[in-house]
Amino acid sequence: MRLSKLFGRTLREDPSEAELASHRLMLRAGMIHQVGSGIYGYLPLAWRSLRKIEQIIREEMDAAGGQEMRLSVLQPRELWDATGRTEAFGSDLFTLKDRRERTLVVAPTHEEELATIVRGNAGSYRDLPKLLYQIHTKFRDEPRPRGGLIRVREFDMKDAYSFDIDESGLNRIYDRMVEAYGAIYRRAGLNVIRAEADSGAIGGKDSHEFILLAESGEDKIMLCDGCGYAANTERAAFAKSPGPEEDLAELGEVHTPGARTIDDIAQMLSVPTEKTIKAVFYHSGGSVIVVAIRGDLEVNEVKLARELGAPDLRLATPEEVREAGLVAGSASPVGLSGRRVIVDDSVGLGRNLVAGANREDYHLINVNYPRDFEADVVADIALARQGDECRSCEGSAMNERRGIEVGHVFKLGTGYGEALGAVFSAEDGSQVPVTMGCYGIGLGRLLAAAIEQHHDERGIIFPASIAPYHLHLVALNSNRPEVAAAADGLAAEMEAAGVEVLHDDRPESVGVKLNDADLIGLPVRAVVSPRNIANGIVELKLRSDSEAVSVPAADAVGRVRAMLAEQGS
Amino acid sequence: MRLSKLFGRTLREDPSEAELASHRLMLRAGMIHQVGSGIYGYLPLAWRSLRKIEQIIREEMDAAGGQEMRLSVLQPRELWDATGRTEAFGSDLFTLKDRRERTLVVAPTHEEELATIVRGNAGSYRDLPKLLYQIHTKFRDEPRPRGGLIRVREFDMKDAYSFDIDESGLNRIYDRMVEAYGAIYRRAGLNVIRAEADSGAIGGKDSHEFILLAESGEDKIMLCDGCGYAANTERAAFAKSPGPEEDLAELGEVHTPGARTIDDIAQMLSVPTEKTIKAVFYHSGGSVIVVAIRGDLEVNEVKLARELGAPDLRLATPEEVREAGLVAGSASPVGLSGRRVIVDDSVGLGRNLVAGANREDYHLINVNYPRDFEADVVADIALARQGDECRSCEGSAMNERRGIEVGHVFKLGTGYGEALGAVFSAEDGSQVPVTMGCYGIGLGRLLAAAIEQHHDERGIIFPASIAPYHLHLVALNSNRPEVAAAADGLAAEMEAAGVEVLHDDRPESVGVKLNDADLIGLPVRAVVSPRNIANGIVELKLRSDSEAVSVPAADAVGRVRAMLAEQGS
Repeated sequence: MRLSKLFGRTLREDPSEAELASHRLMLRAGMIHQVGSGIYGYLPLAWRSLRKIEQIIREEMDAAGGQEMRLSVLQPRELWDATGRTEAFGSDLFTLKDRRERTLVVAPTHEEELATIVRGNAGSYRDLPKLLYQIHTKFRDEPRPRGGLIRVREFDMKDAYSFDIDESGLNRIYDRMVEAYGAIYRRAGLNVIRAEADSGAIGGKDSHEFILLAESGEDKIMLCDGCGYAANTERAAFAKSPGPEEDLAELGEVHTPGARTIDDIAQMLSVPTEKTIKAVFYHSGGSVIVVAIRGDLEVNEVKLARELGAPDLRLATPEEVREAGLVAGSASPVGLSGRRVIVDDSVGLGRNLVAGANREDYHLINVNYPRDFEADVVADIALARQGDECRSCEGSAMNERRGIEVGHVFKLGTGYGEALGAVFSAEDGSQVPVTMGCYGIGLGRLLAAAIEQHHDERGIIFPASIAPYHLHLVALNSNRPEVAAAADGLAAEMEAAGVEVLHDDRPESVGVKLNDADLIGLPVRAVVSPRNIANGIVELKLRSDSEAVSVPAADAVGRVRAMLAEQGS
Repeated sequence: MRLSKLFGRTLREDPSEAELASHRLMLRAGMIHQVGSGIYGYLPLAWRSLRKIEQIIREEMDAAGGQEMRLSVLQPRELWDATGRTEAFGSDLFTLKDRRERTLVVAPTHEEELATIVRGNAGSYRDLPKLLYQIHTKFRDEPRPRGGLIRVREFDMKDAYSFDIDESGLNRIYDRMVEAYGAIYRRAGLNVIRAEADSGAIGGKDSHEFILLAESGEDKIMLCDGCGYAANTERAAFAKSPGPEEDLAELGEVHTPGARTIDDIAQMLSVPTEKTIKAVFYHSGGSVIVVAIRGDLEVNEVKLARELGAPDLRLATPEEVREAGLVAGSASPVGLSGRRVIVDDSVGLGRNLVAGANREDYHLINVNYPRDFEADVVADIALARQGDECRSCEGSAMNERRGIEVGHVFKLGTGYGEALGAVFSAEDGSQVPVTMGCYGIGLGRLLAAAIEQHHDERGIIFPASIAPYHLHLVALNSNRPEVAAAADGLAAEMEAAGVEVLHDDRPESVGVKLNDADLIGLPVRAVVSPRNIANGIVELKLRSDSEAVSVPAADAVGRVRAMLAEQGS
């Protein structure tokens, strides 16, 4: 492809609206066009990259036994009502009314539709398992589209769904998909970590995210260098230090005038914050919930909501707290009745703790669980933080890292099969709902994340396997007939050898051409110039290297192929 | 692929809802699933066919100089308001409101969006022409979805758009696209005719449809066997016979009690219908329009609406005719004033015609145009019919044929460029709107049309190039180890030689297996059975042939490849 013919123009200046490197560089390289908030058109360069990503994904899905198909974007709303997801998605769900006033969902995901199709095709246990996938456009009315292709409202996604007779079958396919995902990221040249995750609106039991580490990412994960444990902070477990072994002392009340925070009270009573109990008030389902956690820890709202099965969970307002008769600043579960109490399991690890007395300016000392109060739920609802100890290997400190979620897999279980009647005949003749898993990768986000991970101040540094072309052929003084002829000849030779060439034949200056080559970031650059022609050489340079090498023109094709092979293309 | 693992089950019975062969056969072969009215999911077999069609289209578009990209489905309504197409599409347009109450169009086509992207990228005349295309899902709220994949509300389409500096550039690309379309249909094994067409809501000047001849089609074309002229009946021209040369006689009025139709009056006055003038009343823009045409011809409403630029054109109701003071049964343009009169050019070819007198039970004789009345417009607004003479070669009779539109190309001109400000700098420095063309093929409809053209009473007869697999390998008594081993071996050999195999390893009867092979309709069938194994042979049969041939097992791969090559794969 000649750059003079390519649709899409490079920009000299950084576009002001772009904060993330991938967004800025894709706009500058003429790869994307913003159509609306969170809606983009892909110009040919970006589309070629996306097609390569698509093909890598397809090959790995096929190798894992997947069958490709195509589900519809428009779906009757009734399907979504049957699983309760019209509500679960809320205003993230795009819907429209057709000319007959029927509501159609513009699908963000396809569990409902595919489970319905499987209902008519599952047959018996002999017909399972099935692993089905598609690569198609999804729609989600994100409240805050951001970062170019990182968080958008319309996006291409590979979504796969597995259908099995039971959980052990699901586990086998799930593991196979986790492996396939690993292969996809490796082939795309990306450093991606698998992390335990919360399953959110998709539902189900286990779930893992694939996180590409990048400072610009909005996801946070906890990573243990010791054993490799990784989990989204929304989900991460950690080892909570037990307090010192002490005999249980007698409960007492102390006057604590003006002490309203954990720090106030710890200072006033000269105790470490680990020896206090913090009360936090949440609101869900119309009432206030009291949460107690050791004073040195923070509540993880995602864990809490999941533990309570309360997607509507939020902090209670001061008014709600007052109306509930709770004393902010001096509250605790001790002596509280008629109110739901959730306790983090850290509270049971300490001895003789300080807690609120449920009256203004008083606190209790030597509070011990379960001696002094009851809890409706005791669970891990604490937020892991930088330096917390890994619970898997006990001892290593975990690091908090930022990243971009570039894949998500879920063990869904039998919920969808039950809600939609997708059953199969078991060996004993009974009708059993299918056990489902689902597995997604967003293509555009993967491309943007790859650029977040692979760029420098001059531009993109494409991994060879997903670069729009392999070779950026720069013809300097291309108006001279001998340069044009040499460049055309080299391009033709390269293409005949399977090297995809972007040939800069434009009547532009050396600086503009080399800058554009760095900006677009193809893996290898070749320079043809009057001087190089006179010397019988071609200058080759890896985008990721700073030094160019001169090779005899006759060896150029072989050398470029070798360089690409080393780069993983 | 083993049929026992394939997702999608064949049905023994014809589904009652399917009228068209393609719809019935695709449902029976387990290829499609209806999600809603005019909305389908494609199961793996159909999807493999569609991917092959997609790849043929992509290769031909690339060969024609096209650059693939990806436009968005969701588009701001303002784009559509700018070209007036929100109205032109009317309730065919799916729209939705997002969470901020902004209206988004769910795009049926992409002229607006792409012209807007080109606005930022067109630059100068040196950057043109550009030919851009995508293969993606479109949405159109059809009033009457029908025929399975023939007329749907959600469909995959290749839409290409050309941008040029002027009309002669457009003409060059248009011709190239017409050639590319021809190549696509040839490669897909389809018999398709290019016909002149009306451009409808897309607008513009010239337009051609590609019509696959099939009795089940809802499009009608006129076809001249003499010169090859072909046109949609909505658009078809034909040679109107001139009446006999006569001197103009004096206008007179005759009493014609009870004669209200052309046949009545022709009989009463003993004149042929070609010597009469028929008046027909239409309604547009709030008023009644009088149309006059020779009595032996019919008005073509599409031609009329186009001539008048009146998309809201319809027949006037009897009340509207009465209120307009017109005398149904005795109306004519003669002596009529203050009313728009449109005359088919056939009227000027006759001499001394009979027409209504604009009073009850009276007609005029010896009416001659233009001697006796005036017309606001004289044009060809007549409907071509079976046997009409071709205007291109004069003399041959044209045949009316039914078919399915499987492609449509349009010369759009500068309208979109003007409305959306998509201009380029011309050589003289002026800003000139781009001249556009657009070119569409629906993939699902092409697949269905292929099946309409290629099937028999037993099932589909896939053209080899678009068949989901090449070979249907039937293992009879596949529970016997020697059969399973032979079939597995043959499948592996075939696949190693690039033959795509669908291997029926199910524990089904001979009848069921052979029926399913005929139903799914892959180009070649191979039968492995205990007797064939004993004889050292494999039975091969083309789906399109009635006779099987026995070949030595060792020659099977070579023979199948030869058969496929003959079939165009």
